[in-house]
Amino acid sequence: MAFSQTNLAWSTLLELGGRGRLHDRLARALRTAIRDGRLPEGAAVPPSRALAEELGCSRWVVTEAYGQLVAEGYLSARVGSATRVAWSPAASPPVPRASRTPSRPVVRYDLAPGLPDLRAFPRRRWADAVRSVIGSAVHYDLDVPDPAGHAVLRSTLAQYLRRSRGADADATSVFVCAGVTDGLVRTCRALRADGITDLAVEDPGWPRLRDAAGSAGSRVHPVPVDDDGLRVDDLARTPARAVVVGAAHQFPTGTVLSPARRAGLARWARDVAGFVVEDDYDAEFRYDHHPVAVMQGMDPGRVVLLGTVSKTLSPALGLGWLVAPTAMVPGLRAANPVATAPPVLDQLALAAFIDRGWYDAHLRASRRRFRVRRDLLLTTLAGRIPRASASGTAAGLHVLLHLPDDVDTAATVRAAASAGLRLADLDDYRVHRGPGRALVLGYGNLGDTEVPAAVELLRESLRPPID
Amino acid sequence: MAFSQTNLAWSTLLELGGRGRLHDRLARALRTAIRDGRLPEGAAVPPSRALAEELGCSRWVVTEAYGQLVAEGYLSARVGSATRVAWSPAASPPVPRASRTPSRPVVRYDLAPGLPDLRAFPRRRWADAVRSVIGSAVHYDLDVPDPAGHAVLRSTLAQYLRRSRGADADATSVFVCAGVTDGLVRTCRALRADGITDLAVEDPGWPRLRDAAGSAGSRVHPVPVDDDGLRVDDLARTPARAVVVGAAHQFPTGTVLSPARRAGLARWARDVAGFVVEDDYDAEFRYDHHPVAVMQGMDPGRVVLLGTVSKTLSPALGLGWLVAPTAMVPGLRAANPVATAPPVLDQLALAAFIDRGWYDAHLRASRRRFRVRRDLLLTTLAGRIPRASASGTAAGLHVLLHLPDDVDTAATVRAAASAGLRLADLDDYRVHRGPGRALVLGYGNLGDTEVPAAVELLRESLRPPID
Repeated sequence: MAFSQTNLAWSTLLELGGRGRLHDRLARALRTAIRDGRLPEGAAVPPSRALAEELGCSRWVVTEAYGQLVAEGYLSARVGSATRVAWSPAASPPVPRASRTPSRPVVRYDLAPGLPDLRAFPRRRWADAVRSVIGSAVHYDLDVPDPAGHAVLRSTLAQYLRRSRGADADATSVFVCAGVTDGLVRTCRALRADGITDLAVEDPGWPRLRDAAGSAGSRVHPVPVDDDGLRVDDLARTPARAVVVGAAHQFPTGTVLSPARRAGLARWARDVAGFVVEDDYDAEFRYDHHPVAVMQGMDPGRVVLLGTVSKTLSPALGLGWLVAPTAMVPGLRAANPVATAPPVLDQLALAAFIDRGWYDAHLRASRRRFRVRRDLLLTTLAGRIPRASASGTAAGLHVLLHLPDDVDTAATVRAAASAGLRLADLDDYRVHRGPGRALVLGYGNLGDTEVPAAVELLRESLRPPID
Repeated sequence: MAFSQTNLAWSTLLELGGRGRLHDRLARALRTAIRDGRLPEGAAVPPSRALAEELGCSRWVVTEAYGQLVAEGYLSARVGSATRVAWSPAASPPVPRASRTPSRPVVRYDLAPGLPDLRAFPRRRWADAVRSVIGSAVHYDLDVPDPAGHAVLRSTLAQYLRRSRGADADATSVFVCAGVTDGLVRTCRALRADGITDLAVEDPGWPRLRDAAGSAGSRVHPVPVDDDGLRVDDLARTPARAVVVGAAHQFPTGTVLSPARRAGLARWARDVAGFVVEDDYDAEFRYDHHPVAVMQGMDPGRVVLLGTVSKTLSPALGLGWLVAPTAMVPGLRAANPVATAPPVLDQLALAAFIDRGWYDAHLRASRRRFRVRRDLLLTTLAGRIPRASASGTAAGLHVLLHLPDDVDTAATVRAAASAGLRLADLDDYRVHRGPGRALVLGYGNLGDTEVPAAVELLRESLRPPID
């Protein structure tokens, strides 16, 4: 295969196309030929003068390329001897080709919970906010980010949470994080460093929170939820000294923690010297009453507040917050030496978006849109599937649709998926199977005009069919 | 304190200013008064009719506000009895006020390593890229991100890494992550799930990588570095089956892993059925030769490639990548159930930035600027501090400045800091103390005209003073 031993035309063997200077392209072509096995280990490459002649370039180009590949270990050169290929693809063990990432099934209508209306993302204003902060940031804003978040966003969030959610927050107690999951992971690490390893979660609940707590090393204890929210007496029977609770709007049941339970939970936290982790994930959307203020405002020394823009703007932004009890602030900073905050420009953009009143405006518009959509959904469900009943309808972006006991919800979800309708089964959010059959119907990520068609498809997907 | 028992004017007690509807403002004002202790637990609030008269509003406003606070547990209402405050700030244990985040010391000149020139961040083009992708993204791009990264950026990065770094990458083997640290944490988790718990790192090396591996549960083994790079024979004496190595430009010594060591490292990885984690953090900047292609291209089944834009654009962007051996791809997806990719719009912006050729243009311009700056730095050092000598100068954004043995580098760093000059001591990157005294001088984040003044300040900061 060496130049002098074969009739091989090197100019044919080597693909010298592409961008870059000629010696770079030659090095790349040689590297590719060696990797492909076209130039096997031990083969001599042509003397630089000869190859330069064949390629019609200067000899310098060839010596540069050879030198480069010697430095990389593809070629070896010894004085007085030919330069030879020093590497073989056979040295790498054969590995199976990765299966391609499975593509998502085609979703015509999305009735699964967890998303706001992605069509209504305020693109123009978000772009304006980003452009404005890229222009106005000082150069040291582009330095390694403070893991607790940029001071400007921490201050803006503290003000927003005081004003809109009744929180007790200031810039030092707010941590910017990538969302509720990230906030919970940080909390679990700080709790563990403080000796609190047992954490209770609601059952049914959001599985990702269980996974997050488990991956952060906590032992997770599911506690049942009834019509008043988390059962505090059951909580008190676990060894947990911290509990994650959706006080304003439990996921997925939609219940609001009752005043008596709130008081009981606060007592429990004091008694065990523990903490309540309040997952305030979608409380901005409350339709029939005013939003319930957060528990954190009543008991800031015992409540960790988690929030996110995932349910109001988009989960693709990866922005959320954590409001920590003052005593936990140093632990949150210390417990994870490699914690990172979200990208700084995104943080500054959210701060600008809130400060200009655009976030409030978006929430107001969303609330109006979602109330109309919820009403239409409930009316349509009542008309088309009268044997089902909805609960948890007062707030948030989903309702619980209770179905007759003979409905096979798993089969229904499968039938719907194959028809392009995304549904969620209540059982999938349960650790311990409970009584009753229900679907968790999200109406956030649905076109305004799609409700009737989506409900019709839902009716047709019920297994066995009901009338 | 109840209305009927005091002369207290409620309109004075309650601050009804601020945004929002009147009943919301009233609820907020009552909540604040209860929290402050101005309305103690057990105090009766006025009958709704009486308070409405005093405030000059409709009775409905007051009943709405009271109802809200009953729901939140601040007030309790019983039929036939006055509505009373049900909560007391004394119920929350007093907590120490958090100390404010310590502000960074004023840095006039930054000679610490690890940053590119933040003044030269391509703001306009980055803003253009962001605005363009916000306009062109489809609405399901705003759904929950794929933890492995957006397909568009994975494909763009694969192409870029093949073209510019000689990597063996395709869209399925590239994972988008938040930077090299995040990439290493993901790798360590996947390795642990595969039974590989011992990981070697270079000594001296970047402490954050040690911390990251440790926080991901790996046992970390420091292995010494000499003029040829990592000492593979020392590596082979550890129980490690994976090693993090800066092959193209070791941090902080600046050495390039020699061809013999590269080959030895590849043999070691095969022998122990282990993996090389190649930290390709700043290899784009090489001044006297062409960039050395990555080891990963030679041995894609045994090498995990980590890279980032932190050293080329800004660490504030939080964007990096990992190229995984095919066999490790499923493990990387499975090992962390709550991994998240960086924000989607940032990912798409980076893809657009690369695809339009702006990244290459920025690298070319940076390379020119940094070469000039490095030359000026070396010349100035040689003139002003002739007893010191620099090494590791061929690439990257820092050099090692060797000092006479009698220099107290720690005292020098402290003296410099108090004069506004940020410096880094080689000893701070060492696990085991080595011979010799040196500073790690970064010249990335420095104004073009600041080199002489920074070197002068460095000379004045040397302890004891040398001539």
